[in-house]
Amino acid sequence: MTLMVPFKQVDVFTEKPFMGNPVAVINFLEIDENEVSQEELQAIANWTNLSETTFLFKPSDKKYDYKLRIFTPRSELPFAGHPTIGSCKAFLEFTKNTTATSLVQECKIGAVPITINEGLISFKAPMADYESISSEMIADYEKAIGLKFIKPPALLHTGPEWIVALVEDAETCFNANPNFAMLAHQTKQNDHVGIILAGPKKEAAIKNSYEMRAFAPVINVYEDPVCGSGSVALARYLQEVYKFEKTTDITISEGGRLKRNGLMLASIKKEADNSTSYYIAGHATTVIDGKIKV
Amino acid sequence: MTLMVPFKQVDVFTEKPFMGNPVAVINFLEIDENEVSQEELQAIANWTNLSETTFLFKPSDKKYDYKLRIFTPRSELPFAGHPTIGSCKAFLEFTKNTTATSLVQECKIGAVPITINEGLISFKAPMADYESISSEMIADYEKAIGLKFIKPPALLHTGPEWIVALVEDAETCFNANPNFAMLAHQTKQNDHVGIILAGPKKEAAIKNSYEMRAFAPVINVYEDPVCGSGSVALARYLQEVYKFEKTTDITISEGGRLKRNGLMLASIKKEADNSTSYYIAGHATTVIDGKIKV
Repeated sequence: MTLMVPFKQVDVFTEKPFMGNPVAVINFLEIDENEVSQEELQAIANWTNLSETTFLFKPSDKKYDYKLRIFTPRSELPFAGHPTIGSCKAFLEFTKNTTATSLVQECKIGAVPITINEGLISFKAPMADYESISSEMIADYEKAIGLKFIKPPALLHTGPEWIVALVEDAETCFNANPNFAMLAHQTKQNDHVGIILAGPKKEAAIKNSYEMRAFAPVINVYEDPVCGSGSVALARYLQEVYKFEKTTDITISEGGRLKRNGLMLASIKKEADNSTSYYIAGHATTVIDGKIKV
Repeated sequence: MTLMVPFKQVDVFTEKPFMGNPVAVINFLEIDENEVSQEELQAIANWTNLSETTFLFKPSDKKYDYKLRIFTPRSELPFAGHPTIGSCKAFLEFTKNTTATSLVQECKIGAVPITINEGLISFKAPMADYESISSEMIADYEKAIGLKFIKPPALLHTGPEWIVALVEDAETCFNANPNFAMLAHQTKQNDHVGIILAGPKKEAAIKNSYEMRAFAPVINVYEDPVCGSGSVALARYLQEVYKFEKTTDITISEGGRLKRNGLMLASIKKEADNSTSYYIAGHATTVIDGKIKV
């Protein structure tokens, strides 16, 4: 087929263009999903060269508002955070919906509930399992990062397998200069995607405010500018470390070293049934708006 | 400033979307160049994540048709090949010019003459100096590529410092599986950007037809899909090796291993004054068409 379909490239976790993490969103709401092959979708995502490209389709059931398929340049993902926020923003604009306060996104992992509140888009994160790691592994990662961790780091299964590690403060995190060759070697050996490094903002007016960075040299991403799955991993880790008993909000800034300025709001929510859920919220702004030839 | 300006993402060296090398082109023809800072342009190019993002400005003199500024995600370039073809295509569409057969592009290296013939866009390449390399260096590169070269490879100063090496035939080139860690180490040591590998199509109906690949792991580009400067380097190298005495056209295909299908036409032209000039031509197609918020 050769036709022009609506296209947006949305900047996520920012209100200011070029300061967040981009996602390309292609509006296939009027296209039958059976008419486009996996190879065609993959070729588009390979070509945009962004960390993720998404495709909006009609949902398979009325309980969902839309179906989202998420591709990296190399493969399809069951779910991803910043593409969810960016694609929801694009969906609202494509459908000229200015009043929605809640939506349900269908994707490979199932239903993802989304809320919208004064432009802030929030999704309920899939549960991330927590796993301790050996002291030898910790020592290796401290060597690669070049810093001492203030708590034992852990492995978080958020889809990507992130190690989360805390350092003394936000400044220490911001100034970290990892040995990328060493880190690539270690993460490859351990089958981890990379390290989420975070440090608390000690002088911050907002309590529970962190500077975060995401290093994944083994997948050719030295540093991810603003990492949604990393913020899920960090929130889940902080719950394990600090055992919050009440709903707690965590403010996470990321990207400064790459001249980005992303802001993620993680909420560790105590539900009525005493379970704990994790929500990630952020703003988004459409930067490129037009059509794509497919 | 926050305004919406015309934007195109053009696929170069192909007529079929997603099969070539993309460039993002931003139309600043109505914007005073002094109103946008180097940092703003760099931030946009960093965000698109493409190998190059370009900005069309009014030229500084009437002898040029437009001024082009070319940025990688990290820095501004004095000149680049595929962005020149893609930006010319975008300029013609932005200005609704369907009849031009020649244009002059102003860029940091000066005037770049461009011709347009039935959709085929051709530019005159800046001269590329040829330099022999040592037999030790050749042996090292043969080891990294994992193949024997059929002629002594050379260093071509096309802007990027490419090593050009020929293998037995197109199939051998297509099937090459370099040791990227070794190649990254060697190119870093020698201050080269990477290797242009090429092999002649022995059964081709068109004489002087080559399969080409471009490896530059040291700048984090394992393989460039369709490489304009690489085609200049290859044409200049072939002239040195085969001493063509008449104007000779070289057909270069590239990108198959990355599921692209780029086609570059290099012309080694004998000028009236007995000098030799190099021209690179290709088709281009606008894939994304819209506006960008800057």
